[in-house]
Amino acid sequence: MAKIAVYPGSFDPITNGHLDIVRRVAQMFDEVIVAVARDGEKAPLFRVEKRVALTREAVKGLQNVLVDEFDGLLVSYARKRRASVIVRGLRAVSDFEFEFQLSLMNRKLDSRIETIFLMTKDEYTFISSRLVKEICRLGGDVSDFVPRGVERAMKRKFGSKRSG
Amino acid sequence: MAKIAVYPGSFDPITNGHLDIVRRVAQMFDEVIVAVARDGEKAPLFRVEKRVALTREAVKGLQNVLVDEFDGLLVSYARKRRASVIVRGLRAVSDFEFEFQLSLMNRKLDSRIETIFLMTKDEYTFISSRLVKEICRLGGDVSDFVPRGVERAMKRKFGSKRSG
Amino acid sequence: MAKIAVYPGSFDPITNGHLDIVRRVAQMFDEVIVAVARDGEKAPLFRVEKRVALTREAVKGLQNVLVDEFDGLLVSYARKRRASVIVRGLRAVSDFEFEFQLSLMNRKLDSRIETIFLMTKDEYTFISSRLVKEICRLGGDVSDFVPRGVERAMKRKFGSKRSG
Amino acid sequence: MAKIAVYPGSFDPITNGHLDIVRRVAQMFDEVIVAVARDGEKAPLFRVEKRVALTREAVKGLQNVLVDEFDGLLVSYARKRRASVIVRGLRAVSDFEFEFQLSLMNRKLDSRIETIFLMTKDEYTFISSRLVKEICRLGGDVSDFVPRGVERAMKRKFGSKRSG
Amino acid sequence: MAKIAVYPGSFDPITNGHLDIVRRVAQMFDEVIVAVARDGEKAPLFRVEKRVALTREAVKGLQNVLVDEFDGLLVSYARKRRASVIVRGLRAVSDFEFEFQLSLMNRKLDSRIETIFLMTKDEYTFISSRLVKEICRLGGDVSDFVPRGVERAMKRKFGSKRSG
Amino acid sequence: MAKIAVYPGSFDPITNGHLDIVRRVAQMFDEVIVAVARDGEKAPLFRVEKRVALTREAVKGLQNVLVDEFDGLLVSYARKRRASVIVRGLRAVSDFEFEFQLSLMNRKLDSRIETIFLMTKDEYTFISSRLVKEICRLGGDVSDFVPRGVERAMKRKFGSKRSG
Repeated sequence: MAKIAVYPGSFDPITNGHLDIVRRVAQMFDEVIVAVARDGEKAPLFRVEKRVALTREAVKGLQNVLVDEFDGLLVSYARKRRASVIVRGLRAVSDFEFEFQLSLMNRKLDSRIETIFLMTKDEYTFISSRLVKEICRLGGDVSDFVPRGVERAMKRKFGSKRSG
Repeated sequence: MAKIAVYPGSFDPITNGHLDIVRRVAQMFDEVIVAVARDGEKAPLFRVEKRVALTREAVKGLQNVLVDEFDGLLVSYARKRRASVIVRGLRAVSDFEFEFQLSLMNRKLDSRIETIFLMTKDEYTFISSRLVKEICRLGGDVSDFVPRGVERAMKRKFGSKRSG
Repeated sequence: MAKIAVYPGSFDPITNGHLDIVRRVAQMFDEVIVAVARDGEKAPLFRVEKRVALTREAVKGLQNVLVDEFDGLLVSYARKRRASVIVRGLRAVSDFEFEFQLSLMNRKLDSRIETIFLMTKDEYTFISSRLVKEICRLGGDVSDFVPRGVERAMKRKFGSKRSG
Repeated sequence: MAKIAVYPGSFDPITNGHLDIVRRVAQMFDEVIVAVARDGEKAPLFRVEKRVALTREAVKGLQNVLVDEFDGLLVSYARKRRASVIVRGLRAVSDFEFEFQLSLMNRKLDSRIETIFLMTKDEYTFISSRLVKEICRLGGDVSDFVPRGVERAMKRKFGSKRSG
Repeated sequence: MAKIAVYPGSFDPITNGHLDIVRRVAQMFDEVIVAVARDGEKAPLFRVEKRVALTREAVKGLQNVLVDEFDGLLVSYARKRRASVIVRGLRAVSDFEFEFQLSLMNRKLDSRIETIFLMTKDEYTFISSRLVKEICRLGGDVSDFVPRGVERAMKRKFGSKRSG
Repeated sequence: MAKIAVYPGSFDPITNGHLDIVRRVAQMFDEVIVAVARDGEKAPLFRVEKRVALTREAVKGLQNVLVDEFDGLLVSYARKRRASVIVRGLRAVSDFEFEFQLSLMNRKLDSRIETIFLMTKDEYTFISSRLVKEICRLGGDVSDFVPRGVERAMKRKFGSKRSG
């Protein structure tokens, strides 16, 4: 049976750190679904449709990777998509604890779905969507941290905010 | 002299993890006051009166346990209630640091009041009020994580929000 | 060439913990600029002008210490002021991780500017601007934790809020 | 191509926590090799042959699980066995950091081999080989923490040491 | 029924940080037993008889505090002494995790015995038996960190080692 | 007055991560003394004379950097060398806590000497002397992690051990 993995997140926006995880997971399983959470953030920079579009553009070279949006319980979504594995990236100790609690909770909610963790590559440990948005908002150069399309979209956002 | 302990928190709502701490502390001291903070959370799910009522219902079998609400400085409240001990549960490293700072501060404010910590039982480490509310809001089953009365109250809340 | 260090923060308000760092850094470098971030906090207690004024009053005995406000990227500000060092205080493990990511990011943005860290003195580890504001708001005594002028300003703030 | 995972460790001795990881990984990949490190511990309780035998006995019901011993670089061993994945269990923050460094190092040594992490089930977080040996040495009951065969072997060890 | 607490450790040697914990626990319970572990350290500086004697001297003003030595399982010892509470001091996050595992294990071994934790006072967080021995060995002044009797004993130890 | 900084360690052996710290500190202060601890490690791979020689070779292009060996209290050594700053590198949370305790202790022993911390560059976070020795012992390639001279010396060590 094909092994399907779900990689969930807000992806507001997708960064090079996320992309590195996607590429590595795509090597490991038959199919990877990048699942963009509709309401993962309180006040997202991009609406979910835009986050899906930017993510889709970023992964387009990868054959066995799909991009989808979801809401509701992650385990319910995973089951509906016949996925047996949830993938999460770890960058730091503070990630670790929350992820630990979440994975125990998800296992309690559905013990057939397994969560695995990948450590972020060293050169990406300091890149988070939050920090990247902050840098871009303040006019810093983010071209090393996000895909080209994301950079353009962010600049438009913050440019229009400024002139607005 | 009777030893009185205060167990403070938002209890928005009380979980089985909290209840486990209450039961264990009730064995250790003559009287335990579960002190519900009026303004512990920015935007609580339940108003303080409801949080007190749900907590009271949950602990009703325990002879030496009282439920009360409080506001203002915790050490002032403890002194007013003639309590000499503040009890806090620890679930994770991230709890630890904030609790450490808080307990040093409280000791500075009133050195006669001691803070003790209990580790949450292993099967409750992943249960937080925040996570339980999130799961229930998304339609997940929380019956293993909270008392029956709390489950009913949460379902009413989220049901009415949905139909509203 | 004179060694200039920038010590950035929200300083909402400056505490005795911050002051300890400033004094120690002033021994180490030719000039120290305490840089008050215009928009460091979501909803600051004091406006930036007041935060600058309170900070200026607190450091007035120190010859080689200036107080300034800034916005935009910290590394751009540092370069503009010809500073080669950014100074950050560490109080706890949770500080550590975020600071780590931030310093890696800043180095990526401008590799000529170095970030150094000082550990907060033991008696100040539990003092944060957030906790001090909370204690003062609840009517607790904060005279051991902040300079005299800050205490007066906070009491005025919270007093007026109460009577308002 | 068949996906092969290596689960390395000292297994001195294998615990129920290890076994839980093995069972979960066996669901995820075509073949799992439990790789017992010849010199993983300074002064192991059991010689490597015994550790392999106890591990083999513990996993004998699992079709796609092999037990092997190894020495030298883990990535070289993985490559030789045509494994593309290394599996590690995480129990705590302190595990996390060392594992993080090790996985970055292994990736540097061979970028084709991926490391994934599984969180230990809540009821096993407090079980480590070290703690189990300590409890057994002091005469405590370890039947809930290790397979039956391991318990017997440990009792023999510590019994003989006592009477010795 | 009298509430008895056990405060176990190697006490090689007892420090002012330990003493602070003992004093605070003595306020909370009817009787406190400071239990010196016979084989808590690989190569202790002082033999157990000396560690007991130094501890006894240090606590002699405290009415409801006894000093004893123990070996074997801590929970068995606690039960034998009719203690219902084990007390542990926490100084740092790294303490926290090991203590967490140990307390879960002890609860599993005997659920009637409760473990509570006290945070070390801020001015003692950096004092550990290990660091104090190291400083004294190198000729540093440890009079602020340990009781007078301990300082004398350590100086004799390291003095004799030097001249030896 | 010239600002002198001491960068202490075992340097058994010096790695590229250490070298990165030395280079950055050399930009910040008038003189940097790399101080090799005579007895920093239980069983060092290299004797102190060799560690000093390898370190000296590694830093030879840096004008204001000296290499020295020391024993006894670090603060006494720093004072003797007229240094006012101790420099430490931080790689991880686990470093952080021990370093925190050590710096508080050193400040207690001599308040005129300040400790500052630099975060290790992202590409060096996983390189520790311990891990590098382990990889080299097992026959792995360490040329990216240590200076050329160190690599040669380690290979000789482990080669001779093997053939021995």
